[in-house]
Amino acid sequence: MNLTELSPAYIRAIAPYQPGKPISELAREMGLVEADIVKLASNENPLGVSPKARAAIQAGIDDLALYPDGNGFALKTALAGRLGIGLDQIVLGGGSNDLLEMVARAFLAPGTSAVYSRHAFAVYALATQAAGAIGFEAPAKDYGHDLDAMLARVQRHTRVVWIANPNNPSGTLLDNDALHRALAAFAATGAVVVLDEAYVEFMDPERRAPSIAWLREFPNLIVVRTFSKAYGLAGLRVGYAACSRELADLLNRVRQPFNVNSLALAAAEAALADDEFLAEAKRVNDAGMAQLTAGFRRLGLDWIASAGNFVAVRVVKEGDAGAIFQALLRKGIIVRPVGAYAMPEYLRVSIGLPEQNERFLAALREILAL
Amino acid sequence: MNLTELSPAYIRAIAPYQPGKPISELAREMGLVEADIVKLASNENPLGVSPKARAAIQAGIDDLALYPDGNGFALKTALAGRLGIGLDQIVLGGGSNDLLEMVARAFLAPGTSAVYSRHAFAVYALATQAAGAIGFEAPAKDYGHDLDAMLARVQRHTRVVWIANPNNPSGTLLDNDALHRALAAFAATGAVVVLDEAYVEFMDPERRAPSIAWLREFPNLIVVRTFSKAYGLAGLRVGYAACSRELADLLNRVRQPFNVNSLALAAAEAALADDEFLAEAKRVNDAGMAQLTAGFRRLGLDWIASAGNFVAVRVVKEGDAGAIFQALLRKGIIVRPVGAYAMPEYLRVSIGLPEQNERFLAALREILAL
Repeated sequence: MNLTELSPAYIRAIAPYQPGKPISELAREMGLVEADIVKLASNENPLGVSPKARAAIQAGIDDLALYPDGNGFALKTALAGRLGIGLDQIVLGGGSNDLLEMVARAFLAPGTSAVYSRHAFAVYALATQAAGAIGFEAPAKDYGHDLDAMLARVQRHTRVVWIANPNNPSGTLLDNDALHRALAAFAATGAVVVLDEAYVEFMDPERRAPSIAWLREFPNLIVVRTFSKAYGLAGLRVGYAACSRELADLLNRVRQPFNVNSLALAAAEAALADDEFLAEAKRVNDAGMAQLTAGFRRLGLDWIASAGNFVAVRVVKEGDAGAIFQALLRKGIIVRPVGAYAMPEYLRVSIGLPEQNERFLAALREILAL
Repeated sequence: MNLTELSPAYIRAIAPYQPGKPISELAREMGLVEADIVKLASNENPLGVSPKARAAIQAGIDDLALYPDGNGFALKTALAGRLGIGLDQIVLGGGSNDLLEMVARAFLAPGTSAVYSRHAFAVYALATQAAGAIGFEAPAKDYGHDLDAMLARVQRHTRVVWIANPNNPSGTLLDNDALHRALAAFAATGAVVVLDEAYVEFMDPERRAPSIAWLREFPNLIVVRTFSKAYGLAGLRVGYAACSRELADLLNRVRQPFNVNSLALAAAEAALADDEFLAEAKRVNDAGMAQLTAGFRRLGLDWIASAGNFVAVRVVKEGDAGAIFQALLRKGIIVRPVGAYAMPEYLRVSIGLPEQNERFLAALREILAL
């Protein structure tokens, strides 16, 4: 029996997602002390967990032998109130990754296709492939989505269009009017559009697309958000999708019944109400972004203007940034190489606390001077 | 645009899993106080969370803004040591449900089929359908799996055979020799066999199948276990699969990169080392099973002998137990109707603490006397 042939060819061909290197792993590999390691590799919130979320987690520990509320009633009620939509328009996920995979399983299958952009978040291609569908990659414009190019790639069998706004790892943001026009055009094709807004909370409100209001206009639109970034709950795994009732119903059919754990439900509900923490996260991010880009300017490095809590910086003119990534690792600093995103000259660095940003800049300065 | 037609027909046809009613939901619906409600509906551990797991959870809260270790290195190392297998033979899941769905996604697709037993755990049929595969249900023998009947249903396109041992909701246990013979026969068909041992820790060691040792013999075997039952961590979502390296590699290709949250990883590792808690859970379960079955005997009710932490009791001679389920709800007691498992005359009740079992028995006595 050839075991691997038990899987369809498209499963065997999957190259699993490469996450940021965990601190514990680097410590093991390099014999470093965990406390000395700076991880700016996974767009995590350097402020940690919000105090309100922390209190909710504490209060939930006693009940962990019970299954979570599979309907997520309390969190969905809180989200529905804040977003001004119905409870039945919200689908909860174990992080937004879970929601992206639900979309793939609900709408994609062998014989269908999906469209995404070059340099876009890797999970779109992975989830498309795992569902046995064909993925069409549209060329990018200045490392951002070229919506016209994406539209041109939609075909009769296209079921999903993946849009990241801002995009990870490039940080590029779409113009709201252009996005709105594209959504109208995509709606006419009959495909589902996923608008992945994982980083939306880091932006000034006036820059944000009115995506939730657009749900009334576009019943094929699915807005996906996460508590892993600005809300500081990456370790707990919780995100949400907002969409029409019809699409929410389909997503819930492929949702695992207990896909969000009890502490994540409680922590997300509390974090959603912690406006002060969110505002502080944004302040720290704005200041850190200014600090890092000023440092890049001093080093004579180009970077891509980013609307997220990370920035892609071009550390080599040509070739591959891998050697600089490795040199940073040896100094106990973890950032993200993005060669797999067709950006080999760049490293993506997450915005940290001032002292973390400074350690990264100082290390980069030393390495580039060699 | 007809939105629902965006999904394949097999997705639209899914009737989502019906979990046990959460305490909060019953309290809302019936105007009851949560503390007065007894939930014996989801095979949860009435002892709560193990003290060692609780300490590990506390220690992990500070780091929740960081993503979990997607490789689950520490937990897999602990499991590998305990089971005597390689790290690369273990796949972690967000509960065993996540692992069952990974199996479906890795091996099933339109044009393939899976085999399971009548009265078997509902997720086998659901996961098979969600992958677009055909599910063949074999007839049961005394509410348990009929392995010969299952073998007879394996066809050329069968990729997965689902076996629950003990089975939920019937509690039936397979004979170890018969199971071993069947595994040899299934191996010859070239299908993957999932042996779902979610309840194995409640059994005396000498009754348990030597399933981990069988992995050396059957490279097509996947043993699935969970921390949701005896280990008391249902709310956190963590389980594991043990299998050949080849199958583990395929499962990891469809695994979400951060499918197990940080607190679940830490708590499971600690719970695995808490032998005292596990022994106490088994003592409480054995005593509760004796208490409930003695009560059933006094009430003149039949039940199915169960190797799990639950028991299916026949509360009506014919017809449907729904009215008795509803009457119990009105008394603040949640059990599980199993009509969807073709066992309409039965209710499944989880083993609780002595006073919970007694409240259930007393309520049942009152209802049956009406």
